[in-house]
Amino acid sequence: MDIKQMVKQDQEVIKLHNKQLVLEVIRKHRPISRAEISKATKMSATSIGRIVNELSGEGLVKETSLTSTGVGRKAIKLDIEPGGRYSIGVDIQKKRILIGVMDFSEKLVLKEQVVHTAEEAAPEATAALIAQTVRQCLEDRGIERSKVAGIGVGTPGVIDHAGGIVLLSATLGWRNIPLSAMLFEATGFNTVIDNDLKVKILGEYLFGSTKGLDKTVLINVGTGIGASLIINGEIFRGGSNSAGELGHTTLDPNGNLCSCGKRGCLQTYIEESALLAEARRIKPIEDIMQLFEAARAQETWAMEIMHRTSLYIGITINNIVCLYNPDTVIISGDLVENYGEILELIQEQCRTVIWEQFRDSLKVIASELAGQAIVMGAGALALQLDKQP
Amino acid sequence: MDIKQMVKQDQEVIKLHNKQLVLEVIRKHRPISRAEISKATKMSATSIGRIVNELSGEGLVKETSLTSTGVGRKAIKLDIEPGGRYSIGVDIQKKRILIGVMDFSEKLVLKEQVVHTAEEAAPEATAALIAQTVRQCLEDRGIERSKVAGIGVGTPGVIDHAGGIVLLSATLGWRNIPLSAMLFEATGFNTVIDNDLKVKILGEYLFGSTKGLDKTVLINVGTGIGASLIINGEIFRGGSNSAGELGHTTLDPNGNLCSCGKRGCLQTYIEESALLAEARRIKPIEDIMQLFEAARAQETWAMEIMHRTSLYIGITINNIVCLYNPDTVIISGDLVENYGEILELIQEQCRTVIWEQFRDSLKVIASELAGQAIVMGAGALALQLDKQP
Repeated sequence: MDIKQMVKQDQEVIKLHNKQLVLEVIRKHRPISRAEISKATKMSATSIGRIVNELSGEGLVKETSLTSTGVGRKAIKLDIEPGGRYSIGVDIQKKRILIGVMDFSEKLVLKEQVVHTAEEAAPEATAALIAQTVRQCLEDRGIERSKVAGIGVGTPGVIDHAGGIVLLSATLGWRNIPLSAMLFEATGFNTVIDNDLKVKILGEYLFGSTKGLDKTVLINVGTGIGASLIINGEIFRGGSNSAGELGHTTLDPNGNLCSCGKRGCLQTYIEESALLAEARRIKPIEDIMQLFEAARAQETWAMEIMHRTSLYIGITINNIVCLYNPDTVIISGDLVENYGEILELIQEQCRTVIWEQFRDSLKVIASELAGQAIVMGAGALALQLDKQP
Repeated sequence: MDIKQMVKQDQEVIKLHNKQLVLEVIRKHRPISRAEISKATKMSATSIGRIVNELSGEGLVKETSLTSTGVGRKAIKLDIEPGGRYSIGVDIQKKRILIGVMDFSEKLVLKEQVVHTAEEAAPEATAALIAQTVRQCLEDRGIERSKVAGIGVGTPGVIDHAGGIVLLSATLGWRNIPLSAMLFEATGFNTVIDNDLKVKILGEYLFGSTKGLDKTVLINVGTGIGASLIINGEIFRGGSNSAGELGHTTLDPNGNLCSCGKRGCLQTYIEESALLAEARRIKPIEDIMQLFEAARAQETWAMEIMHRTSLYIGITINNIVCLYNPDTVIISGDLVENYGEILELIQEQCRTVIWEQFRDSLKVIASELAGQAIVMGAGALALQLDKQP
């Protein structure tokens, strides 16, 4: 390819790039005037005018009413049109699927939870169930299919996100399931999938408790355990998108035997079933909420379990921080959602179990989005589908 | 900036980029013919001819003698001129500085070890010592200063590699030392610095036991302990270039008290001083080599120490692999260099202490470059200084 051809191709690319840039600036700084966009993008007023007209013609951008700029002058500002574009976020877990419709302002306008039993979690049935729910959601809100950028999915397991394949999900009992293709077939929408915790931290980074903080680890503790990392604004994936498999890190070399055959795996101490087993040495409780209630009622045995759990989570945070070197840790998952008191216990442990070099600068906080983080992260992933060639 | 200006600027950038690309192709595939370069770079024969002439005029590239291509035809091939460009690699440790001169073919043509005592490790004295040794090395080999791209340094501690500052090095007792600037002043050469283990894994990745393997963790065990990671060809730095601080990860929640005030830190079990302390419960040995000799002589107490050490290294590998998800682990440092038998012990432990999902695909190997890895990685870093604007 010679320089002339390159230049011609470059011009096309630059045009598209400029349009996306303007849209991005409007999304981030809305409402914003044409002059401000011109300043931010260093593009000419003429170019901005043309691009805004295009975006407006496509129904993605609208003018707001005149607003005072504080010194008496009034300017027409531009905002995005929330109804201009939609995406679908899907969070598939063992017993339920959460589906959300996100508008162009990245607000969830609709959320639908579907319960499925073990049999219904068969991949084909799951795809059909999602397709049916998505169809219903769009109908209910009167959203045209042409306005939907695509579907984003977060689900537990080892995910080939580039190929759209669930390589292995112990939680769902799936192996080598081409979920992206199946959902495309069932719905007609382009679909992007990823590991649920990687989608979750993306949600927190874009919308939640660590909005804009780009050196953040998320630790999930509940029926399962895992971690994910955003570093310099990117999801850290490791060699095969399996980074953050916290459950089988070794907490205690001489500790509990794990179902995996190893000794001392973290999950044998802090995941829900481990807490239940501990509690039942004392009391035949039926579910984990009874443990939390007992701890709230200051029952010594229950407080001891929560104390040890917080210590082990603290130690886990130390190990993660030494290896990943983040500045913020989000605690998320069923444990902190149902027993928020654990956060303070963990923070207290961190004062002694985090290595001094990292201790003072590290923030340990709870998730803000809680149950919505995966759906929102997945919705944001799906909105990105528009930008792909 | 309008399109025309952009195009003009782009052409300059493209020219420089193309020249570097051709040089890179020659370096990687040497010896290589002009036609092959043209094919690899998709540039015209004319362009390649012009660029090669330039590179040749600058003394960076030379023609090799005619070589048979196997089917009877003979082609003139191009190779880089080893003496066309040099760089200096420096490895600063507590008691010694290793300095190497690397030629343009990335071979170490000279290596010099300088011993310095604790007082000589003062930053100014260290910079002066390095400057003097570098001067001597260049004189000895008759290398012109104009042919030196710069100096690369690897040193233990928390390094601001962008700013060229040693923020904190417990090993050297340094804090906030602007080492890059000091070495530039002392030598007149541009200098780039980085944490020693990050430089070491770069050396292994470019020249050593994991050449080209881009999902590799290096674990260093000796007088200190640490880890570094190359993922998808890039050094993983974490939030503040402190990723991989292995020494204070918690191995055992109820374990040894560490000098940092925490309980169960890994370094209290496997670093050299810990092994010595264990051994001295049995025998008043003077140095670590006597422990290794005793283990080689099958003395039970010594074998037990090496056995436990290998178990704990195995567990550490498991924790690292679960979080980083590499496919290869390099064991490096004084322990494996002086007691190579430990590698097999570690590999055996790995059969049981690595989580099954990662176990079969994981390779655990020893460093090939051993004591030279940091100097070579640092030399390669310094050669890159040429590419910066």
